[in-house]
Amino acid sequence: MAQKIVSNRVKEYEGYLDYNYRPTKEDLVCEYFIQPAKGISLEGAAQRVASESSIGTWTDIDTLSQKMFNELSPKIFFVDKKRGVIRIAYSKELFEESNVSQILSSVAGNVFGMIDVDKIKLMDIDFPESFIKHYRGPYYGVEGVRKIMGVKHRPFVGTIVKPKIGLSESSHASVAYQAWVGGCDYVKDDENLTSMSFNNFYNRVNLTLKAMSKAEKETGEKKAYLPNVTAPFKEMKKRAEHVISQGGEFVMVDVLTLGWSAVQELRNMDLNVVYHGHRAMHAAFTRDPCHGISMLVVAKFCRLIGIDQLHIGGMVGKMYEGKEEVKSVGEAIEQKVVKQNLATHRLKEEWHDLKSMIAVCSGGLHPSKVAPIIHGMGRDVIIQAGGGIHGHPRGTIAGATAMRQAVDAEMQGYTAQEYAKTHSELKEALEKWDKPIANKKVNTKTRIIKRK
Amino acid sequence: MAQKIVSNRVKEYEGYLDYNYRPTKEDLVCEYFIQPAKGISLEGAAQRVASESSIGTWTDIDTLSQKMFNELSPKIFFVDKKRGVIRIAYSKELFEESNVSQILSSVAGNVFGMIDVDKIKLMDIDFPESFIKHYRGPYYGVEGVRKIMGVKHRPFVGTIVKPKIGLSESSHASVAYQAWVGGCDYVKDDENLTSMSFNNFYNRVNLTLKAMSKAEKETGEKKAYLPNVTAPFKEMKKRAEHVISQGGEFVMVDVLTLGWSAVQELRNMDLNVVYHGHRAMHAAFTRDPCHGISMLVVAKFCRLIGIDQLHIGGMVGKMYEGKEEVKSVGEAIEQKVVKQNLATHRLKEEWHDLKSMIAVCSGGLHPSKVAPIIHGMGRDVIIQAGGGIHGHPRGTIAGATAMRQAVDAEMQGYTAQEYAKTHSELKEALEKWDKPIANKKVNTKTRIIKRK
Repeated sequence: MAQKIVSNRVKEYEGYLDYNYRPTKEDLVCEYFIQPAKGISLEGAAQRVASESSIGTWTDIDTLSQKMFNELSPKIFFVDKKRGVIRIAYSKELFEESNVSQILSSVAGNVFGMIDVDKIKLMDIDFPESFIKHYRGPYYGVEGVRKIMGVKHRPFVGTIVKPKIGLSESSHASVAYQAWVGGCDYVKDDENLTSMSFNNFYNRVNLTLKAMSKAEKETGEKKAYLPNVTAPFKEMKKRAEHVISQGGEFVMVDVLTLGWSAVQELRNMDLNVVYHGHRAMHAAFTRDPCHGISMLVVAKFCRLIGIDQLHIGGMVGKMYEGKEEVKSVGEAIEQKVVKQNLATHRLKEEWHDLKSMIAVCSGGLHPSKVAPIIHGMGRDVIIQAGGGIHGHPRGTIAGATAMRQAVDAEMQGYTAQEYAKTHSELKEALEKWDKPIANKKVNTKTRIIKRK
Repeated sequence: MAQKIVSNRVKEYEGYLDYNYRPTKEDLVCEYFIQPAKGISLEGAAQRVASESSIGTWTDIDTLSQKMFNELSPKIFFVDKKRGVIRIAYSKELFEESNVSQILSSVAGNVFGMIDVDKIKLMDIDFPESFIKHYRGPYYGVEGVRKIMGVKHRPFVGTIVKPKIGLSESSHASVAYQAWVGGCDYVKDDENLTSMSFNNFYNRVNLTLKAMSKAEKETGEKKAYLPNVTAPFKEMKKRAEHVISQGGEFVMVDVLTLGWSAVQELRNMDLNVVYHGHRAMHAAFTRDPCHGISMLVVAKFCRLIGIDQLHIGGMVGKMYEGKEEVKSVGEAIEQKVVKQNLATHRLKEEWHDLKSMIAVCSGGLHPSKVAPIIHGMGRDVIIQAGGGIHGHPRGTIAGATAMRQAVDAEMQGYTAQEYAKTHSELKEALEKWDKPIANKKVNTKTRIIKRK
């Protein structure tokens, strides 16, 4: 048993470059931005990244044969020195294709900590068909959600019950009711509201779903409540099942603070609910344009595992991302065949049979932000305002009415200002917020990376 | 139902500063580094962070009463303008204390994406006793693991089967066997090896545990195999249960690519195994000294939920962290009462009844790195070398022997060079690697942050 396995060792950090290689239909392709450490070339750093993310280590070893290397080593087939961009093609044998955590531990694992790179960002992953067939994608997606909601063409209007935390179960239900009768389609819990000492999850769901039924009867419109089931797996499952037992058709999950293993499992359980994904914590690793993992990658994994609707940025709100970035992610989760976009580091992607997700825009939004969002994102979008509804001078009902009026205006071809002349709620909202405060620092330019 | 809830609105972003406040025994305290956006003061940015991570939003709202604000608003009680450091005390009502995902969605959620800050890093969380009592911590911890392994005083020697991916089940078992008979205590799977087309998890575990028994008989020493069970939750559970059914006593989890919900649940299941935590992906958000979440925070959550042994850095290897940083995290997971350490942004912490975790050092290590690791970390440490064992000129057995000799040397008061005079495996290893290659770019200085 103790014999040597091979005698001719493969040299470390060599043999990964192959500019003539063309990715096969079964290869997984990653685009990375790399800023190598001082004294290391981009190609050198790229080889270290290819090695660490697959079969290699930092020194030649006795147990890696040339044959194994030839079969399994990824190929760096594209290097753009000017932009610091490289692309690596990995063969499918390097992955447990249905296991998101394993894929991330490979291509988004140790590479971020290597001393050979000063910065490195995983910009996109082009999943081949052989991977995609291992996933089921959204069960409902855009079409399914439109069918549930009975809304054919217009964007959805949603709100987050505010304050994030602090309301009792009955106050929560009351605020939700006001939002619905005012005109909201969706009401969601905030990302940090789960089951609190003063607001128990189960009671909240019961009361809020009752309030929803009342609002549905009074308005004649279908409404949706998105309770946040985020918890350790067993309790999360129990919470989701409770929502269903009470007639709920949607659950919300904090995808990243829960983590991929639990979220993937919850989707795989086929609970027959719409999964609403919040991305709390993403900017800890998506924000630096040169280091971490892009929001695009997060969003694509969500589509693979089957989140139906996902927060991808406010576009024109209180979060840092520029319009082009949000738009690019929005296209990647909605389109069937996604084109390469050099400026946003987006590779091509073909989603085959996986359904589209709906983009959720939120974060510092209010009625005057509705038009630019629809112009940027199209109609298949959920526009969510928390402060922009509950902060209306006349409160939540008027705030919800104003947001819905802003959507109606856009659908009917009016500007918000024009429509406000005959709609007092919208008028009051614009008077309070229609000044360039919240977006004064939003960078609307595409963040094309330039190397130092 | 539709009445207004309050009439006097609380102003947004005001009222969170209170320099006279002293955190109570039930408060959760966070230290953040903040680099505010242009035109915003540190105090102003701090108030936005306190608001966004708790009860606030970007505008005054109708549904937040002054009473609720007074009861629930967190207090910024410390601001160090020179270092850009602030501390916030949050009352326990803001949290579902047993739910790691909820805590992160609060204090490590949206704050990273706010346009009001250019950079923000969550440096540490001081968990009060009222939180800690909701967690069970490691079941085995340092003492339990030493008891299982029958090793009282010396550091443990471990290896990772290499190449990361590529070996069949039987080759994997063979390499593991060689490492064990050579002198390793531990053999682990690599972070990206789960269940592959050419190396099935179940077969691998069966064969490798058999090889382990053989090695135990031949060496008279207790050995440990750490199979990587990382997968969607249900399959992960099945894999862990299979390990136990085959007599395994350890499982390995990629904590961060799995995510907190699944890992917390696996620990809560009381499977009666030692949990070995790998941190793949951490540096996507821990590496920037000014943005993201610190490794210290990751490690403390691992201790809370009950990981027994955790990768915290190579200290002197191929990863970027400096010695002081790794040492500081090591102290935080091993000590019962942890002192504040300004230089590494570590708050005080008292762990009460939670057991200690063992630190795992790995990443570019080989025999000449053993002494500095023991000097820095003490004896309660698992020193893991992959390339530094399988890369030995005479292969895996000799490589494992050399690593063990390096530990023996240190325990007996010899330098590795001295001990090598009478130990050929160590001598050959030093001849290959004892030159300052792998650590030439390691910054061994404490990374004290200076604001721009």
